[in-house]
Amino acid sequence: MAAARPSEPAEGSAASAAPARRPEDSSGALLTIDLDAIAENWRRLRARLRAGAQCAGVVKADGYGCGAVKVAKRLHAEGCRVFFVARTDEGFALKPHLPDAEVCVLDGLVPSLANDYAAAGLVPVLNDPAQVEAWTSYCVANELRPPVVIHVDTGMNRLGLSEADALALAADRDALRAFSDAMVMSHLVVSEEPDNPINARQLAAYERVRARFPKAKASLANSSGIFLGPAYHFDLARPGYALYGGNPTPGKPNPMRRAVQLLARVIAVREVDKAGTVGYGATARIGAGGRIATIAVGYADGYLRSLSNRGEAWIGSHRVPIIGRVSMDLVTLDVSSVPPEACQVGDHAELIGAHLGVDDVAERAGTNGYEILTSLGPRYHRAYLGEVD
Amino acid sequence: MAAARPSEPAEGSAASAAPARRPEDSSGALLTIDLDAIAENWRRLRARLRAGAQCAGVVKADGYGCGAVKVAKRLHAEGCRVFFVARTDEGFALKPHLPDAEVCVLDGLVPSLANDYAAAGLVPVLNDPAQVEAWTSYCVANELRPPVVIHVDTGMNRLGLSEADALALAADRDALRAFSDAMVMSHLVVSEEPDNPINARQLAAYERVRARFPKAKASLANSSGIFLGPAYHFDLARPGYALYGGNPTPGKPNPMRRAVQLLARVIAVREVDKAGTVGYGATARIGAGGRIATIAVGYADGYLRSLSNRGEAWIGSHRVPIIGRVSMDLVTLDVSSVPPEACQVGDHAELIGAHLGVDDVAERAGTNGYEILTSLGPRYHRAYLGEVD
Repeated sequence: MAAARPSEPAEGSAASAAPARRPEDSSGALLTIDLDAIAENWRRLRARLRAGAQCAGVVKADGYGCGAVKVAKRLHAEGCRVFFVARTDEGFALKPHLPDAEVCVLDGLVPSLANDYAAAGLVPVLNDPAQVEAWTSYCVANELRPPVVIHVDTGMNRLGLSEADALALAADRDALRAFSDAMVMSHLVVSEEPDNPINARQLAAYERVRARFPKAKASLANSSGIFLGPAYHFDLARPGYALYGGNPTPGKPNPMRRAVQLLARVIAVREVDKAGTVGYGATARIGAGGRIATIAVGYADGYLRSLSNRGEAWIGSHRVPIIGRVSMDLVTLDVSSVPPEACQVGDHAELIGAHLGVDDVAERAGTNGYEILTSLGPRYHRAYLGEVD
Repeated sequence: MAAARPSEPAEGSAASAAPARRPEDSSGALLTIDLDAIAENWRRLRARLRAGAQCAGVVKADGYGCGAVKVAKRLHAEGCRVFFVARTDEGFALKPHLPDAEVCVLDGLVPSLANDYAAAGLVPVLNDPAQVEAWTSYCVANELRPPVVIHVDTGMNRLGLSEADALALAADRDALRAFSDAMVMSHLVVSEEPDNPINARQLAAYERVRARFPKAKASLANSSGIFLGPAYHFDLARPGYALYGGNPTPGKPNPMRRAVQLLARVIAVREVDKAGTVGYGATARIGAGGRIATIAVGYADGYLRSLSNRGEAWIGSHRVPIIGRVSMDLVTLDVSSVPPEACQVGDHAELIGAHLGVDDVAERAGTNGYEILTSLGPRYHRAYLGEVD
C-alpha cells in the first residue's frame, strides 16, 4: 500500500457537500482501508486451513473499525459465505447486503425478537438452553428449518452452553430437529499463546462435546487458533483480527498484510525559544531550540490517551516521539531532530502504516491491537482501496 | 434523572426501520443524554461568572460524545451565542444549525479553505502569524469584516501565537483592521489544580498580552478555570467538560448535575459449577458456586479495555465488580453477591449513572472523564431528554 492521499470525499461525510474542499485540508486525519489487503489476508488464512475446512469472516464491531459492509462485500466477492457479528443490530444492518450468506449473531437470541431474526434471515448463535428452547419452538411453530449455531463454553465463562448442558442437548434425539443443519462452536481463551496448556484443555473439552453431535459441523479457531495447527481447524475457522492486518502470532513476524493507514495533518510547528512544559498537566519538558509539531488527532478520535508521552509517529523517514499528553483533539510531537523543511504545516504524520503496525501502537498504548482498530474514530476522513459494489 | 428506559428509536438508527423492535431488546446498551441537565449546568456556570462575562459552549468532539447538534441547539435556547468546535469539518456540520451564533474553530484556518470559512460564516481561531496574515488578506480583499479570535499560547506549547508574535501583532496598528471585533484567548494547562503555580504564571502572561489589545475581548477560562475565581473570567468563559456533568473541581464534591446514563443489557447469567478462569488471557479466577453475568458492552463501544478487572457496575442497589478482561463486545461481572432474582437475562446494569459518575469510571480506567465521554460508542442506543427543535 503506497502512502495514500485519498482525493474523493467519503459518502455521507460533511466534505461531500462541497466537492472543492479536499479532505487533506479539511480533515484532521486520513484513514485508508485497503480492502485488497483484507481480501488477501482472508485468502492467506484460508490457504492455511486443513483440506475441506471453510473460512468465515468476522465483521463485528463495524468490521473491527474498518467498515463492516464494505469489508463483508469484499470478502463475499472472494467467496466467503459465513459472517459473524456481535450485536443483533449489527446483524440487521449487514444481512441485506449479503442475501445469500449466513450472518451469525454472537450475542445470541433475544426471544422476543425471534420473529425479527426469522424475517431478516439471521442466524442466532444460541448461547444457553433457554435460547435453544425458544428458537426451536419458534421454528417448529412457524415451520421453518433454518441453519443454527450452538455455542458451547469450554473455558471462557462468558457465553455458551456449559459442557453439561451441551451433553444434555446432545442426548435429546429431537433437540435439533427444527434445523436444516447445525454447527457447534466454541471460543479459545489464549490462542495467541501456543504453549499455554489451556489450549489443549479447551480442545479436549471441545472434542468431548462435538463428538456427541456427530451430524453437526464444528468450529473452534479464531485468527490465532488457525496457527495452532490443523487439529484446531475443524469445519470452519472464524478469523477476525488477522483479516485486518493484526498479527495472530505475537512474538513472531506478522504473516498478514497491512490493511490500515492513518495519517494526521500537521496544523502547527513551533520553535521553542525558552525551555518549558508541553500540554495539559505539564507532564513533559522541552528545552530551548527544540521544535514541536501539533497534529490534528486526539483521544476523541480513538487515539488512546494512554499513548501520552509513549506513542510515536513518523514524518517521512523520521521517527518522532509524542511529547506531552494526548489531548482530546491534538497530539504534540517532538520534531527537534527533523529538518525544518521536512515537517511543515499541511504535511502529514504517519500514526499507523508502513513504519508502525497496529500491534506496535497497541504495545505502546498498553493494550491490544483489537482495541486500536475498534477505536478508529468517526472524525477521520475515510478512503477505501479495492471496494466492490 | 430517573432510570431512563427510552422507548423511541434514535433517528437514523438501525432500529428505526422496524418500530416494533424495542431498543431495550435489540441494543447492547442504552445511552441517555439529559439535555436539561446540560442546560442547567450551563446556567450554573454562567451564574458563577463575574458580572458582564459571557458563557460559551464547547461542543467539540461531537459535544464530548453527547451529540454536538442537539447539545448546541439546547444551549442556544438557553441564550448561548458562542460555540467552540475543534475541527473545520465539525464547524461546517454545526454552523447551519446556529445561524445567529458564532461557531469558532479551534484547529484554526487552513488558508486554502478561507473561502469555505467565509461562505459558511465560521470564525477561525487564528493560531499563528501565517493564519493571521492569510485571514486578514482574504477579508480585506473580499471586503468582509467578520469577528475574529486570536489564540495566544501562554504555556501549552501546542497551538497559538507566541507571546513575542502576539506583541508584534499588537504593535501593528493596522493588524486587526479587517475585523468587526476581536477576541484574544488563551488556554490553561493545569486549571483543575488550583494550587499549582502554573495557573498564576499563565494568568500573568495572558494579562501582559491582552493589555496590548485594549479593544479586544478576552477569554481564558475553561470549565475548571471558572472555579479559579473572577480574575480568570474576563469577557468569555469556555466550559466544556462541566457542561456534560464532569467534575471541574477534582477532589471536591461535583458541583454539576449528571447528564449521562449508560445501561448495558445482561445477555447471560452463568452459575459456576467448578472453579475456573474468566475471559481472554485467563486473567481472573472464580470459585465454584459463583455467578457471572455477561453484559453486551465492550471496548468496541468505547468502554475502555483498561477497565479489565478494575471497573464496576451496579445492578439495582448492588455494586458488582468486573471480573476478567473487557473484551471487544462483552464484559463479565461477578454477581455472586446478588440474589439471583435481582440479576436476570434482560435486566440492565448501570455503567454510568446515579451510582457511578463519569469521573469514577475514569479513575478506575486510569484516564480522565473527558476520554470516557468522547469514547461513548456508536452501537449504543441513544435517547435524549429535553431536546429542542
